[in-house]
Amino acid sequence: MIVVLKQNSDQERVDRLLQHFKDMGLTIHYSKGENTTIFGLIGDTTRLDERDVLAYDIVERVQRVTEPFKSVNRKFHPQDTIISVAGRKIGAGYFNVMAGPCSVESEEQIVMVAEAVKKAGASFLRGGAFKPRTSPYSFQGLEAEGLKLLLEAKRQTGLPIVTEIMSEKHLDLFADVDIIQLGARNMQNFMLLKELGRSNKPILLKRGLSATMEEFLMAAEYIFAGGNTNVILCERGIRTFETMIRNNLDISAVPLIKMLSHLPVIVDPSHAAGRRDMVQPLSRAAIAAGADGLLIEVHNDPRCALCDGAQSLDIPCFDAVMADIERRATFEGREMMPQ
Amino acid sequence: MIVVLKQNSDQERVDRLLQHFKDMGLTIHYSKGENTTIFGLIGDTTRLDERDVLAYDIVERVQRVTEPFKSVNRKFHPQDTIISVAGRKIGAGYFNVMAGPCSVESEEQIVMVAEAVKKAGASFLRGGAFKPRTSPYSFQGLEAEGLKLLLEAKRQTGLPIVTEIMSEKHLDLFADVDIIQLGARNMQNFMLLKELGRSNKPILLKRGLSATMEEFLMAAEYIFAGGNTNVILCERGIRTFETMIRNNLDISAVPLIKMLSHLPVIVDPSHAAGRRDMVQPLSRAAIAAGADGLLIEVHNDPRCALCDGAQSLDIPCFDAVMADIERRATFEGREMMPQ
Amino acid sequence: MIVVLKQNSDQERVDRLLQHFKDMGLTIHYSKGENTTIFGLIGDTTRLDERDVLAYDIVERVQRVTEPFKSVNRKFHPQDTIISVAGRKIGAGYFNVMAGPCSVESEEQIVMVAEAVKKAGASFLRGGAFKPRTSPYSFQGLEAEGLKLLLEAKRQTGLPIVTEIMSEKHLDLFADVDIIQLGARNMQNFMLLKELGRSNKPILLKRGLSATMEEFLMAAEYIFAGGNTNVILCERGIRTFETMIRNNLDISAVPLIKMLSHLPVIVDPSHAAGRRDMVQPLSRAAIAAGADGLLIEVHNDPRCALCDGAQSLDIPCFDAVMADIERRATFEGREMMPQ
Amino acid sequence: MIVVLKQNSDQERVDRLLQHFKDMGLTIHYSKGENTTIFGLIGDTTRLDERDVLAYDIVERVQRVTEPFKSVNRKFHPQDTIISVAGRKIGAGYFNVMAGPCSVESEEQIVMVAEAVKKAGASFLRGGAFKPRTSPYSFQGLEAEGLKLLLEAKRQTGLPIVTEIMSEKHLDLFADVDIIQLGARNMQNFMLLKELGRSNKPILLKRGLSATMEEFLMAAEYIFAGGNTNVILCERGIRTFETMIRNNLDISAVPLIKMLSHLPVIVDPSHAAGRRDMVQPLSRAAIAAGADGLLIEVHNDPRCALCDGAQSLDIPCFDAVMADIERRATFEGREMMPQ
Repeated sequence: MIVVLKQNSDQERVDRLLQHFKDMGLTIHYSKGENTTIFGLIGDTTRLDERDVLAYDIVERVQRVTEPFKSVNRKFHPQDTIISVAGRKIGAGYFNVMAGPCSVESEEQIVMVAEAVKKAGASFLRGGAFKPRTSPYSFQGLEAEGLKLLLEAKRQTGLPIVTEIMSEKHLDLFADVDIIQLGARNMQNFMLLKELGRSNKPILLKRGLSATMEEFLMAAEYIFAGGNTNVILCERGIRTFETMIRNNLDISAVPLIKMLSHLPVIVDPSHAAGRRDMVQPLSRAAIAAGADGLLIEVHNDPRCALCDGAQSLDIPCFDAVMADIERRATFEGREMMPQ
Repeated sequence: MIVVLKQNSDQERVDRLLQHFKDMGLTIHYSKGENTTIFGLIGDTTRLDERDVLAYDIVERVQRVTEPFKSVNRKFHPQDTIISVAGRKIGAGYFNVMAGPCSVESEEQIVMVAEAVKKAGASFLRGGAFKPRTSPYSFQGLEAEGLKLLLEAKRQTGLPIVTEIMSEKHLDLFADVDIIQLGARNMQNFMLLKELGRSNKPILLKRGLSATMEEFLMAAEYIFAGGNTNVILCERGIRTFETMIRNNLDISAVPLIKMLSHLPVIVDPSHAAGRRDMVQPLSRAAIAAGADGLLIEVHNDPRCALCDGAQSLDIPCFDAVMADIERRATFEGREMMPQ
Repeated sequence: MIVVLKQNSDQERVDRLLQHFKDMGLTIHYSKGENTTIFGLIGDTTRLDERDVLAYDIVERVQRVTEPFKSVNRKFHPQDTIISVAGRKIGAGYFNVMAGPCSVESEEQIVMVAEAVKKAGASFLRGGAFKPRTSPYSFQGLEAEGLKLLLEAKRQTGLPIVTEIMSEKHLDLFADVDIIQLGARNMQNFMLLKELGRSNKPILLKRGLSATMEEFLMAAEYIFAGGNTNVILCERGIRTFETMIRNNLDISAVPLIKMLSHLPVIVDPSHAAGRRDMVQPLSRAAIAAGADGLLIEVHNDPRCALCDGAQSLDIPCFDAVMADIERRATFEGREMMPQ
Repeated sequence: MIVVLKQNSDQERVDRLLQHFKDMGLTIHYSKGENTTIFGLIGDTTRLDERDVLAYDIVERVQRVTEPFKSVNRKFHPQDTIISVAGRKIGAGYFNVMAGPCSVESEEQIVMVAEAVKKAGASFLRGGAFKPRTSPYSFQGLEAEGLKLLLEAKRQTGLPIVTEIMSEKHLDLFADVDIIQLGARNMQNFMLLKELGRSNKPILLKRGLSATMEEFLMAAEYIFAGGNTNVILCERGIRTFETMIRNNLDISAVPLIKMLSHLPVIVDPSHAAGRRDMVQPLSRAAIAAGADGLLIEVHNDPRCALCDGAQSLDIPCFDAVMADIERRATFEGREMMPQ
């Protein structure tokens, strides 16, 4: 961390600040010029918040030289992390498609979609039991009952399941879920992150609507800090000024995460635009940019979906998209899961 | 709600959609032109999600004519809401300053600051016991112990307290807190919103970093939907491209909320820029724009604050800012609380 | 266009507004409900500005049903436009790579780079003579002299050239330039758009940093309105909150433009991130998403570039990127130019 | 400027870079730690572009310590600049209201509005002759004829005029204009900035829709670099995610500019929201935050304005707003112009 002091700072206060950093176990490179005095802080600066340093009156600017995240940082863990769930490998070139409806609606519906996406080649069934909705008057999901139906679909088809948690209080309900999803709006629900950090479940962490890469990786760091290293990152579109699409896929996030972190990254092309007609082109871009998988909304009848239907594919359409995905994953040298 | 159909839509499917709306108790104005067919849906459309309607293949566009929020909507409740807490009135021209440190650090510190802000004219003591921090390695607040210290400061000074909740699990701990703050990152933590809706505590709801007015008011609607009508809205700055400030006060939010809703709105000039030197000009703008109060960070020694020191005022500085605030509130015809 | 009137509007004023629309040659569908009165305007509404309609006191909301752009709209011109320049075809599956340095620096430099990129397979030489720089103290390009050097490089290598115009006054200087680039900061320089509309030169129109799709296509419409239909659209990254990259490639823009317009769209992966290490993954994503070409910065010695060096590839690196591009274009069934 | 080198950089290349900076006349503080090597560059670094330095392979990070703007920087010119135009003083506590229609439409209209705004207390007449419109099919202003009508209104009322330039080619037409406005979309039209820098006219420079403070002040620096020091900055709202308003007034810009620069800053509350009902609250916030003036759209009949009517005040409404403005300017200790 580099700390630039204000001109003509009182030497006694400079010395006090120097001592403060030394007390934290940091080594200091002290460079005093005619107009500018600079400290270079060497050591573990992750515990140091830029804003706490800025709070000192004599400090003009602060800049990190090393990222504030450690455990998820590729610098300290150069190998790609592979997460193994229900016989599937996620990361490091293995390619997974997680597919299913926005909401679980009935046993018939979820089993039917599970069979269809399994047949088309998906390796996980996704489906929402607890649904984050902007309006309290919208359908909120079948909740605990929805989880039971997902597990029933898993029992009947063998597909492992991915589903979203919305409250620390519900963790017990998720005991048999294969991957717990943390939604974009809860990316900085720090209490829930800590709770998930104490579990040993694979976590699919979705990026917040306006979160930076650093904030996203720091959210993953929260889960690691609790002891859980099974984190899958998911880029699902950011908010931009464009009104023709709901969100805007940040394709740069895929190679950036790959450079910064060893964690797997998957892309959700359904939420990333909120339009059926964008799912295929965005899936193609994601595969080409290096994503480790896709999360795709599929519904038996998009016209009747209880939520988010505008972005769901119907089954014949998903079959076609999957065929295209497989051809492209093969071109990229990725191995489709399950084998 | 206006629904524009795609050209040449199959009449049978149009009829089915018409029937679907009728079954929801809506009245339909059906306008069929040469190229465009339009439905105008009349009735309570708050249960209808635009995206669910868009999911129908035959639908081209959907636009709401009435806002999706009801209980917090000024149209249905033209009078300003006044929230009474501990003898203070909030809203409708009464002006409250809530002041105190970012974090509670010790009994000595919090009591000292409480006395100072009370003397300067603040009507509430604010202070963080549970702290949302971007990094798991940063100080997370004194938690339950911090709440005790806040209550001790209340006991000693008589100042009611405002403090942030971060988990549904902690609600019992907040039994003696006067106003429960819900932070920006949790604005769409729907489970926590529902829980707060079931309590009868006044809630200070902070706007999310990138939330629209509609999303902000829908979050308030969640609390109302649970039965709790004691909601105070807080504008605390949005994320913009500017790097010289941490967030950017959305001053337009103040008059917009006043037009759209009957709820009180206060402004947090400390978080809104993250810089001490912006607190006074932003406070002035907020008062002039019609805010019902201010939430200001004050610390006994900003250089030593355990978090967010860069934006805290020290006590002599807060004294000066308060004198300016009182002069301006009087100019605007607002009544300073407590009397 | 749909116009929703305010409740209880004065009938005389409603009639006057109706007449106003009729006078413009529009057909009106008039739907009067108990609480809401709606006009549907049918006909050519491109001359109608939403804001002009909103200016009427009795109007509550306005929504376009058809896009405000006509000539560039795929609805009225379903076939992909192919632009032929110097024996190259641009659009409709033909794939062009335009490569070269940020700035022309000397004859030796530009000829050397031109030969190198030609050998690697580029179909156009790009290079800046007039440079838009944030600071008046930064190098502003060799200007007219730079144009001469570009033309000399064209003479020696046969590569057609693409270069940026910054002023209406310079149009004569661009007489022998093959494609005139209009930069992102000038996307809404309407006088320059009109001037380019009166020329018959192919125009490479770059999207503004925060422009919406509609604004981007309306800028192209300005060029068409003047009579010039040789427009190539270029997505070059938008401004987002991410600080690790300079801009953020909006990959969704590629399929969106393809749906909305018949014009070719190319992607600039160099400016889109401002980082050398992002050029390859973003190029891959662009090809997969359907782009008609790429605009890539290449320099003989990136360490010495007079501007924007951080994003330039050196020649060995560009050779490798081009080989990858060709393999991918072939996979997608595109035909690389020149044949 | 601080330059952080990559770990284990080749010493010969480090030496070459050191020499390069020395050749530019910079003094270097060289700090070599175990893992990090830092250069502190002392001297005039305004000619140095961060990105040019980043282009060196051995450079990891670059951070400016001093702002890249010089002439407009308050550090080098601590006194507020006062610009004198037609007997009015602008800046340093003098308060000006510039008012008039979006577009000049006829002699009758512009003279009528000029008389009305003069009577209400405005010190300048604003009005558009050349109009930047998103659509080529919208009314583009009366152009040269409109300028004549503005000058006629000036002749009849004595009010000096402010009007927008859109092309370098038109500069001669603006010879008798008192203040030339450069619009938001042209804030980085560098050729026009240079041309205006060579004139001696007062320039009202509007901030771009998504421009940062640094970019805004660098645009002003362009005008100064040409020799023209008569620059008035105008905050007119930035683009945010909010859809209920057209733009969003960045109130923080007012105190930030005042800290960073000695130039006057005025606020345009009409464009800043695009809604009549926001003009008064935003004007109040602007005065309280320290603005040196306001730019307000006024029309004789908002329902018939040829452009931007939704945000224009009619004359009785402007009279009321002006009375409120005067009362507030007096409260703030500002002197209303003209005396």
